[in-house]
Parts: sequence; structure tokens; C-alpha cells
Amino acid sequence: MAKEVTLKQVAARAGVSYQTVSKVLNKQAKVTRETEERIWRAVRELSYRPNLLARNMRQQRSQLIGYSWEPTPGDQCNPILDKFLQSMSQATEEAGYHLLTFPHHPGSKSLDIYEELIDSNRVDGFVLSSIEYDDPRITFLHEKNFPFVAFGRSNPGQEFMFVDIDGCRGIQKVMGHLLELGHRRIFTLAWPESSRVGQNRFDGYLAAMQDASIYPEAGWIARGEGNYSFGYQATEKWLNAPKKFRPTAIVCMNDFMAIGAMNAIHHQGYRVGEDIAVTGFDDIPLVQYLTPALTSVRQPLWQVGQVAISLLIRRLEGESCENEHILIPPVLIVRQSSDPTCLVEIQN
Amino acid sequence: MAKEVTLKQVAARAGVSYQTVSKVLNKQAKVTRETEERIWRAVRELSYRPNLLARNMRQQRSQLIGYSWEPTPGDQCNPILDKFLQSMSQATEEAGYHLLTFPHHPGSKSLDIYEELIDSNRVDGFVLSSIEYDDPRITFLHEKNFPFVAFGRSNPGQEFMFVDIDGCRGIQKVMGHLLELGHRRIFTLAWPESSRVGQNRFDGYLAAMQDASIYPEAGWIARGEGNYSFGYQATEKWLNAPKKFRPTAIVCMNDFMAIGAMNAIHHQGYRVGEDIAVTGFDDIPLVQYLTPALTSVRQPLWQVGQVAISLLIRRLEGESCENEHILIPPVLIVRQSSDPTCLVEIQN
Repeated sequence: MAKEVTLKQVAARAGVSYQTVSKVLNKQAKVTRETEERIWRAVRELSYRPNLLARNMRQQRSQLIGYSWEPTPGDQCNPILDKFLQSMSQATEEAGYHLLTFPHHPGSKSLDIYEELIDSNRVDGFVLSSIEYDDPRITFLHEKNFPFVAFGRSNPGQEFMFVDIDGCRGIQKVMGHLLELGHRRIFTLAWPESSRVGQNRFDGYLAAMQDASIYPEAGWIARGEGNYSFGYQATEKWLNAPKKFRPTAIVCMNDFMAIGAMNAIHHQGYRVGEDIAVTGFDDIPLVQYLTPALTSVRQPLWQVGQVAISLLIRRLEGESCENEHILIPPVLIVRQSSDPTCLVEIQN
Repeated sequence: MAKEVTLKQVAARAGVSYQTVSKVLNKQAKVTRETEERIWRAVRELSYRPNLLARNMRQQRSQLIGYSWEPTPGDQCNPILDKFLQSMSQATEEAGYHLLTFPHHPGSKSLDIYEELIDSNRVDGFVLSSIEYDDPRITFLHEKNFPFVAFGRSNPGQEFMFVDIDGCRGIQKVMGHLLELGHRRIFTLAWPESSRVGQNRFDGYLAAMQDASIYPEAGWIARGEGNYSFGYQATEKWLNAPKKFRPTAIVCMNDFMAIGAMNAIHHQGYRVGEDIAVTGFDDIPLVQYLTPALTSVRQPLWQVGQVAISLLIRRLEGESCENEHILIPPVLIVRQSSDPTCLVEIQN
């Protein structure tokens, strides 16, 4: 095979600029027919391989970053999507990239599309979200040695580049607020143990209780799918117990369970906030308009999007930041569902 | 210029298949060095232009469809984004395309990114949403003769390919329901006249009133930004009037205004649903859990995404469907905010 011919040599032979050759070969320039002929003649005479041009000019790189997310069940809303995508789109654009969004395929098919996007050179890297324990995407991308950044952690000790909201810290803030108000019988509505995000938030409950030397009984912890019905039913059950066994506060690991708890309390004739405090997590837009308004924890999603893309771009540009971890603290927003006397108060 | 050499001629000369040549030229196949050399020799001897290959194989096409959306204010949620994007991602993938999402730039910069995406061959077409009157994107893409499909209409008579939810029909369904319950003093919380979506829904109010031979007074119609505060304040003002001037029902052009109206009614000591009926539009996920649950209108967003992509792909594949219009009827969901006696009832 001949020694590689450069684009500059083609340009010199054709008597035109480097840029003109590049544009003509990529069909992006209008030049005279004569100039075009001359360029192609130089290409042939020098046995120049136009596809090397592509590689040289980084056109092998797609300048696209892939992102997919698990669809939200119809009765819930995705509290993060809009802001997170806008933030990532803006950050990718500023770095000269764009975001390619692709559909979520559940189960065994889920990796096929990652593989296809890699093999067809469609994307240069991925952003992953909704990370779970033993997440197959992480193993797969590690094996392929393909760049990615995760919004979320996985198994302890598993090394990859991630940004995460410190859910444990968020719930600790909620607990600090409730403990300060004098609550001791603080119950919690949590996700199943298999939920990585759920466990992270739940750790905040356990840590805060331990710090306050309160030892929650098994009955204080209800686990289930993080939706309205579960929140409603578990709370109803607690309220049916004799008074001394009931909670004075219910800490919920998301807003939908909290709304279920609020409605159960209301329907049984108690007052949310005054008789029983309720708190959520996510601060979805409507919860501020509930009666009473729901105390919740807001995730700094704009920041997560910016940091995630910035990490990934650094990696794509060759920096060794594969194992960087960034934890972002969330923000407690106290409203009347936990403190009827308060005006809205934001605690950073 | 020599007569165009075909890929088949190159393949024949190199003694390999058409596919092998194509893959080698696109760096997508691993073949022996000897085969590769033979293919490149054939390319040179026949003066084959590899870039024509690209055009032939439609590799000049990016197989990407661009989509951008206006970010939702922080106190609201985007009721359509998750489902609409999932639907479009799935439909694009099935057609062999992908979705490129890019950030929304307000004001005068907004067209720059469209132009850049077109000029750099990043996308083959666009999906536009949040279409307004005199939408500059439409004029711009028309001038560029660049393919796009819109979720939404614009000025009457302006011709382009669109899918839309029939907002007028949706509000007519709401009105039919309220009129049937005996309401006559039906007031409405509407957007400013400059809102295209808002006017479309508002037309449903006017048409239904006219059909029922009711002539709304100017004071029955309040216009403002479609948010909670406006809904709250406008309703408060109505309730401060003497009883005979008050509404018996308030039709809101979105759910956030409706929640504002509900809370204003509640805070003034009236009962939503029993004293005054309230209805929304969009059926955002939380409104079913309000007390009382909110009657609303649901948009078939999955269908909109599927139809929009299918139209655009047909256009990209060469079909003359530039002026196709598809109107999809929304679905009324009756809940206790308008009919306290009802269990949930879905009216298609």
C-alpha cells in the first residue's frame, strides 16, 4: 500500500486551497467544473483516498451523544425530563455536539440499540439515566470500551464516570426538619430494596434516625412501587391502627406516594400538616398548589445536565476522567404539609 | 468529465460483491489487506468517485430528524414531552432514522440553529411544535424548501404538513357536558388572543355557546398567561361579585389555570364541583389525584408522534404529501370537579 497521501498534497497539485479540496470532496462547495475536474484528477493521480479525509477531519466522529430514558407510567409525570434534556442539549450544542435521542426498549432487547448505534458510528458516547444495580448497560459499555457518563450510581465499588443527586443527603435534610419540629414517630414510604435510587434516599432516613437515637420498628417502613395507590393504601393501614401506633410524620421517597398519603389522611378526617406531617421528593411542579402545599426536595437538574455533558465531552476529547464522580446536593423546600405555620422556605 | 462509473463496475473489476466494495469504501468491513488493495486499485483504474457512492447509498442523508421545544416555566410541567418524544423516537427508529434534539433559543437567535443544522447536513427534516401565528420557522423552512412537519397549525390558509389536536372539538365536548348538566353561566379562563393554540380551544367555547343560544358577556371571559396565578386571581375576582353575576362553571384552557380556579373557590369557602364546576385541558398526571379530581381533556400524544413522523418520512422518501393535514380528536375525562356524582368517565 502506498504511503498515505495528504489532503495538502492534493490541494497543491490541483492548485487550490486545502478548504476547497475538502469541500469539493464532501460535495459542499460550488466550484467551476474545470476546478472540480482538476481536483479529482489530482486525487486520482496521487491515489488519494478520500475516506482518509473523513478520518482526518474527524468526520468519523458523529458529534452526536446518545440518550434514552425509561418512559414514565401514564398516571405519573417525568419530573426531570424537560429540564434535563434542555440542559444537555444546550451543553452539547456549546461543545459542538448534538443529542441523539433513541427509544427505550425494555428487557433483553434493550442493549441491541446501543450496539447498533456504536457499530454504525452513529454516536460518540452515551448518557445513561435510571441506573440500577447490576445495570447491564454499564457492563456492556465497559466491555465495548465505549465512552459514557451516567446520571446515577450503580453497585458500590463499580467504577465509571457519573453525576448523581445526593438523595441520602436530601432525605437527611427532610429528617432534620422533622426532628427539629419534635417528631419522633417518623414513618417512611420507600421503594423496594432492588431500587438503587430508592435505597440511596432510604439510607438518609436510617442515618438520620440513628443520629437521633431513634430505632424505627419494622412496621414504620412500608415498601412498594412509588406510586399514588401504594402511598394511599399503606397510609390508610397505618391510620387504622390505635393512636399510639400511628405516625406523626410520613417521609415519602417521591411526590406521588406523598400525594397518596395526603389524600388517605384527608379522607380519614385528619389534617395533613397539623395532625400528621407529610413530605415528598422531586418537587414536581404541581405539588406547590396542593392543599396544603407539599414539602419536597428539589433536584438541581439543570446542573446535572451541564456537568454530565461536560464530563463526557472531556472524555471524548481525550482527557482521563473515566472515574470522576460528582455528587450534587438537592434542595429542601418546606411548605405547609410539614409545617402549617410556614411560608415557603427554601433550605439549600 | 468521464461517464459516471457505477459501484457494480468497481465490484466486477475487483472480483468482489457490491456490498463488500460499499463496506470497504465506508470503512465498515474487515477484509484482507489484499482484497482492500484490489478494491482501491479498481476504484482508481475506473476513476470511480467514492462520493457518488455516498449519494447513491443515501449517505448524504443524515437519517436524523431535528426536534426542539420551548422549555416549560419552572412552576409548570410539560404535559406532552415524555410521551411525544418516546413516540417520535420509536417511529423514527422503525423507519431507520433517529431523532436529534437541539436546544431552544428564544428570539432572534432561534433560526440560526435551524440554518446551521440544514447547512451542515446534520438533519434531513424537522418536527416543529408550539406553532404560533406568523411562525418565523415556517417561513424560513419554506424559503429553504426544507422538509418539516408541524405539530400544530398556523395562520389560516398557510399550507404545510401538519398534525394537530382538535382543541376546538375538545372544548366543545367539555361544553356539551356542562350544558347537559344545566349550566348556562359558563365562564372561561383563556389565553391571550395571540396564542394560536389558545384561540383554537377558545373557538370551541364560542361555538358551543352559540349552538346553545347563550351569549356570553365580556365579563365572562378572562384572558391571561395560562398559569396558576392568573387562574387564581381571575376566579377570585369573579367570586367577589354578587351571586347573580358569578359563574356556575369555569372552563379553563389548561389544567394549571383550572387548579388556580379550584384553589380560589376552595379558599373562598365554596365547594368545587358542587357550587361551581371547574374543567381543565391537558389532563396532566396529577389532576386525577386532586380533591376533587379535575375534569380534563386528554391529548392522544402517542398518536400525534406516530402520525407526525410517518408524514415526514413519507415526504423524505419522495412522496408528495406536503400539504397533508391531520386533525386528531382529544378525549374528555369527566371527574368530580364538574360532576360530583360521577365515577370517572371517559368520553371519546
